[in-house]
Amino acid sequence: MAKRPFGTVAPPGTSRNWGYALRRVVCPGSFDPVTNGHLDIIGRTSRLYDEVVVAVLINVEKKSLFTVDERIETLEAVTREYGNVRVEKFYGLLVDFCKQQGIPTIVKGLRAVSDFDYELQMAQLNYRMSGVETLFMSTNPEYSFLSSSRLKEIARYGGDVSGLVPDLVHRMLVERLRG
Amino acid sequence: MAKRPFGTVAPPGTSRNWGYALRRVVCPGSFDPVTNGHLDIIGRTSRLYDEVVVAVLINVEKKSLFTVDERIETLEAVTREYGNVRVEKFYGLLVDFCKQQGIPTIVKGLRAVSDFDYELQMAQLNYRMSGVETLFMSTNPEYSFLSSSRLKEIARYGGDVSGLVPDLVHRMLVERLRG
Amino acid sequence: MAKRPFGTVAPPGTSRNWGYALRRVVCPGSFDPVTNGHLDIIGRTSRLYDEVVVAVLINVEKKSLFTVDERIETLEAVTREYGNVRVEKFYGLLVDFCKQQGIPTIVKGLRAVSDFDYELQMAQLNYRMSGVETLFMSTNPEYSFLSSSRLKEIARYGGDVSGLVPDLVHRMLVERLRG
Amino acid sequence: MAKRPFGTVAPPGTSRNWGYALRRVVCPGSFDPVTNGHLDIIGRTSRLYDEVVVAVLINVEKKSLFTVDERIETLEAVTREYGNVRVEKFYGLLVDFCKQQGIPTIVKGLRAVSDFDYELQMAQLNYRMSGVETLFMSTNPEYSFLSSSRLKEIARYGGDVSGLVPDLVHRMLVERLRG
Amino acid sequence: MAKRPFGTVAPPGTSRNWGYALRRVVCPGSFDPVTNGHLDIIGRTSRLYDEVVVAVLINVEKKSLFTVDERIETLEAVTREYGNVRVEKFYGLLVDFCKQQGIPTIVKGLRAVSDFDYELQMAQLNYRMSGVETLFMSTNPEYSFLSSSRLKEIARYGGDVSGLVPDLVHRMLVERLRG
Amino acid sequence: MAKRPFGTVAPPGTSRNWGYALRRVVCPGSFDPVTNGHLDIIGRTSRLYDEVVVAVLINVEKKSLFTVDERIETLEAVTREYGNVRVEKFYGLLVDFCKQQGIPTIVKGLRAVSDFDYELQMAQLNYRMSGVETLFMSTNPEYSFLSSSRLKEIARYGGDVSGLVPDLVHRMLVERLRG
Repeated sequence: MAKRPFGTVAPPGTSRNWGYALRRVVCPGSFDPVTNGHLDIIGRTSRLYDEVVVAVLINVEKKSLFTVDERIETLEAVTREYGNVRVEKFYGLLVDFCKQQGIPTIVKGLRAVSDFDYELQMAQLNYRMSGVETLFMSTNPEYSFLSSSRLKEIARYGGDVSGLVPDLVHRMLVERLRG
Repeated sequence: MAKRPFGTVAPPGTSRNWGYALRRVVCPGSFDPVTNGHLDIIGRTSRLYDEVVVAVLINVEKKSLFTVDERIETLEAVTREYGNVRVEKFYGLLVDFCKQQGIPTIVKGLRAVSDFDYELQMAQLNYRMSGVETLFMSTNPEYSFLSSSRLKEIARYGGDVSGLVPDLVHRMLVERLRG
Repeated sequence: MAKRPFGTVAPPGTSRNWGYALRRVVCPGSFDPVTNGHLDIIGRTSRLYDEVVVAVLINVEKKSLFTVDERIETLEAVTREYGNVRVEKFYGLLVDFCKQQGIPTIVKGLRAVSDFDYELQMAQLNYRMSGVETLFMSTNPEYSFLSSSRLKEIARYGGDVSGLVPDLVHRMLVERLRG
Repeated sequence: MAKRPFGTVAPPGTSRNWGYALRRVVCPGSFDPVTNGHLDIIGRTSRLYDEVVVAVLINVEKKSLFTVDERIETLEAVTREYGNVRVEKFYGLLVDFCKQQGIPTIVKGLRAVSDFDYELQMAQLNYRMSGVETLFMSTNPEYSFLSSSRLKEIARYGGDVSGLVPDLVHRMLVERLRG
Repeated sequence: MAKRPFGTVAPPGTSRNWGYALRRVVCPGSFDPVTNGHLDIIGRTSRLYDEVVVAVLINVEKKSLFTVDERIETLEAVTREYGNVRVEKFYGLLVDFCKQQGIPTIVKGLRAVSDFDYELQMAQLNYRMSGVETLFMSTNPEYSFLSSSRLKEIARYGGDVSGLVPDLVHRMLVERLRG
Repeated sequence: MAKRPFGTVAPPGTSRNWGYALRRVVCPGSFDPVTNGHLDIIGRTSRLYDEVVVAVLINVEKKSLFTVDERIETLEAVTREYGNVRVEKFYGLLVDFCKQQGIPTIVKGLRAVSDFDYELQMAQLNYRMSGVETLFMSTNPEYSFLSSSRLKEIARYGGDVSGLVPDLVHRMLVERLRG
């Protein structure tokens, strides 16, 4: 078994003697819209890796509030300060996207035990299909009750979601849902 | 907030322009003894990081089957082939060990939902106390039923544990428990 | 922070010296139809509070078997004997209804661990948005397997649901589903 | 209370003195399509009982990939080697099917804790309605991440599902989804 | 792979043509003391199998309230009416006991999700070590909160446990704990 | 069935016509020592009830860091500002204490799913034994990873627990563990 995973790209000009490699990961999701919970995971991940690729799923079967392009623009705006985050879209299987990008690792947040079974099963299936690993990070407890769908439901009925999303997203939500 | 975590050490001779850093993690445990489940996590982790430090907890209050030194020797023997695994012992808080080593990340295996709550709470507490992150990796389903304590119980009553531990550990268990 | 929650209404004629207050709670749900499990929670709650307001959610997006008015009438009939239960309908966010009613507390039944994560997350979100608290009561184990949707599915195929719903609801179900 | 359940049929020609009875069970599901996880449960069950009746649910409200007849044919083909498996279809309540067949026991696989609550509640409800018992068998950990719906999603996007389904099903999936 | 498990014993005088076999299972536990929850599982199991062997674990390391012989006598007394229950003691690994008895199946009750992980892991480990299968049965919801240790704690402080244990056990508890 | 629970005491001088009653609850625990998580539950409960009785369990079998009297003094000091909290100790069964106090309701915090099963089972058992109800309140997510035992372990090794306990407790911990 090779010691280096398929997605580890040796940085140009770095002697292989050192063995240091560009460590990149994928943070996938729908991000419709991005919440402070997502941002917490992306930000903490960006401090542990050389590059974080945020992968926005194109799901034509599911009705979304924001278009894929709107979501990408928003993600780019709110992650700019991290300095090593790139936003991409993908269609189909996440592991195919990872392979195309040459990235061996997915990082996901776990909020609660109800996420756990599904996520572990997906991780095991993805590993079996492709060798891509999934690493889980505990969500900041302050956002453990937060999801994009719950957020939209609350905003739709006029509930106050400031503090749960970036300011930019707050303005977009108010405009889209009540405009 | 700094973009680089405290434990990221720039490799000597590497231009900071590239920004590539030595990525190291800690895999903690008691390893009394190391099982194939542990080895699966350590081996998969070793392919995702530049260096894996296996940290053996010294717990004077808990009776162990093997001494800390025996466990370290065994771990060194069975992880040698990975090429980038170092085995250390620690006493006290795991996050203090991580800080001393300058390592910002812990990697742990999750077997089942019963691990989940405890591990997530420890991860949140460790992050709050020290900023050290914990990443969870799904255990290989083939070893999801495996723990060191269950293993010792079975071996003690003469049950067959070959295939659940490395051969070296199998021989040590047979010798220690029935010798 | 005030010692009295916003929804605590001092009963007219009661000296504030005593500090005793009318303690009211909301028991929310769809109640399509009300089951013996719901009734167990409402009845036990009615013995712990001065008034219980049963709040029937108007959900125009979800197809229901009984109209909101039918559900209210049924609930009124089967809770009459408790003496301190009032039935209302609401639209939108439950916490907005609670505020309009001046009631600081929601009481909900928990049947099983699968309810737990969702309900705890909703409770935390509701508290954060509005300060309204949610208290959970363990469902009577005898009805822990019971839900309105499962009940309707069984009744639809001619299964026997007597003993799982009040007699009035049993008659309504038979009439509606097989009439 | 009678010592023998309603579904225990004394085999013709067997003296009642021995009290041995034909032990039959039902393994229910949608099997759209049958996976190696299903087959693992059916095969292990067939070794514990005299006859296993695989019951394919006819669900007109849910869109399926394969017709009920295709699913029955496939199941018959892949379970033929067990020698004591019969495949039937049913409509309505599973417990009514069990009663019609004179079979007192359902056997189901449990993959993960997320299955647990739903399945236990259904088991308790079925027992209360009809006296039919449900016995749960732990899924082979190797297939614990597997479900028909996840499988179809992967196959739809060209993911490799060989090794997760019988060869016959693999060919059918490839033909149906990409043909 | 053989179609018949190792523990299936053909009853004497029964033609193999019929293929009917004596179906036996093991219900294991400490039974210190037996509760109505245990009895519910044993009684329901006795109606699904030709013979139920209740296996009392001899655990010299754990302090018990009743001796193994007292527990066996009590179990024999309260299960006598089922007509097909035999009580045995065992030491060491449960699967070794099953093999000695030639019984291929263990039946256990599942009360709640907290039992689930441990029990599923033990079931998978036992199957891997020996081929012995474990089937789980949902505990009667009325006894889902009941365990021997909780019962003893309550009885010790004078709490009323009648209705939670057989009358015989109730008398024994009162005598032992307050005598 | 009486409409008023046994523990509802009509306040002197209040006309029964109003039916308003003194609503009291018990918040039980070991509180060795009290954490900010406990205090969050007690404080929020004090706003929903007329009086909160904090009940400190005397457990002679478990080694504690602080004496029962120290714990009571500390609790009294840190809950004084709520104005309606009384601290008592109890020995034996919690429901017996509730009955002696004439209080029909226990309020407990739920942190995570691992608490859930045990707590629900205790609640059902307590209700069955005595009619005393248990209401659960979601722990503040900020303290969801916190327990007294974990806290003591961290403090023992010199970890920083400020912000997790009241200042008074912080000083006591430092003095006791390192003094």
